[in-house]
Amino acid sequence: MTHLYEFARPALTVDIVVFGLDEEDLQVMLIQRDLAPFEGGWALPGGFVRVDETLDDAARRELVEETGLKDIYLEQLYTFGAVERDPRERVVTVAYYALVNLEGHHVQASTDARNAAWFPVSDLPELAFDHQAILDAAHERLRGKVRYQPIGFELLPERFTLRQLQHMYEVILDRELDKRNFRKKVLAMEIVKETKEIEKDVAHRAARLYRFDKRTYDRLTKQGFNFEI
Amino acid sequence: MTHLYEFARPALTVDIVVFGLDEEDLQVMLIQRDLAPFEGGWALPGGFVRVDETLDDAARRELVEETGLKDIYLEQLYTFGAVERDPRERVVTVAYYALVNLEGHHVQASTDARNAAWFPVSDLPELAFDHQAILDAAHERLRGKVRYQPIGFELLPERFTLRQLQHMYEVILDRELDKRNFRKKVLAMEIVKETKEIEKDVAHRAARLYRFDKRTYDRLTKQGFNFEI
Repeated sequence: MTHLYEFARPALTVDIVVFGLDEEDLQVMLIQRDLAPFEGGWALPGGFVRVDETLDDAARRELVEETGLKDIYLEQLYTFGAVERDPRERVVTVAYYALVNLEGHHVQASTDARNAAWFPVSDLPELAFDHQAILDAAHERLRGKVRYQPIGFELLPERFTLRQLQHMYEVILDRELDKRNFRKKVLAMEIVKETKEIEKDVAHRAARLYRFDKRTYDRLTKQGFNFEI
Repeated sequence: MTHLYEFARPALTVDIVVFGLDEEDLQVMLIQRDLAPFEGGWALPGGFVRVDETLDDAARRELVEETGLKDIYLEQLYTFGAVERDPRERVVTVAYYALVNLEGHHVQASTDARNAAWFPVSDLPELAFDHQAILDAAHERLRGKVRYQPIGFELLPERFTLRQLQHMYEVILDRELDKRNFRKKVLAMEIVKETKEIEKDVAHRAARLYRFDKRTYDRLTKQGFNFEI
């Protein structure tokens, strides 16, 4: 292969904002760095794009290597290219965000990573590089997207209560929702179907479990919907 | 500066989909290539990102160099990184889209460019590289975005008729809209204000001119709106 131009070219990385939802809060997965710069600091999982892999493949590879996560919802977010964002040299990063149901995935630090852990979005340590800005952009995208795509459902287990569903929207949108209104709107969308099951092993009165209607879900994801709550 | 890693790194470019609106159609600006590959073929304006400029700056610089356009609405779209998208070597491109009012801008091929011209989106020549896919993604983004941000107004002159406004939505969404319903919805949004002026030098009966309410516009752009038409 020829080189198209001789002058210096930026390095290219991917970084991934992995969101997970638990009973309390929206969580994000961070990796503790063991190399300078920001040694010992927390950062988003990510790494360099190889010359023979797509950007999506690079993001998936880094996720597995650094967090053990695979087969999760992953979407390109935005490409960050401020000139001084990495103190070592010019690095442009293609940011992704991923959504994972915390009930279904056991996350551990894999071979590549030093220390991987979940942090609540509302209470984060100082982040390396411009990773706080990347995380803010991902949260903003998520907040916007749940209004017109049923994307947030990726954060829930397969069977869920309407309380869990409402909690998810409240945590992402960062405001309380009226229970009656919420249920009315959700059920009217026909994206959520009642199952015959109820919760198990809970201290409170067991609630009905619901599931997604995959066909309605796919149709709405494609055409967009409007979920003003 | 040290090199972070020794192995080959992808080259990085920007490409810009410039949309313009005329009385007939949604137009896109293309550049005729005078170098291989795709010599003589049509392509989006764009070029390599320099190591000392941001991505936005690179997109703005390339736009001026290749089309003479400046001070127009510009937004990052998506980064395309298929491994074989450039036959010469691995090139990742950060795609942008730009909106320009064709009445207000005289577009000419500048020094860098061979031949620059507007083409209707509905009738394009074969494009170089994966530029058709980039253009499709930009059109899709525009189509989605006019539903929840008043972004399309960038395509109109400062004073416009409601007919022009409706035409813009029809061309972007690629379907006819009901005139009465459209006007009712637009005026209810309070984003469009009547002026005291009417059209000049037109063959048909001169229509009232409207303008944007900048404050409502900024507020709606920020919070998003829902314009189901």
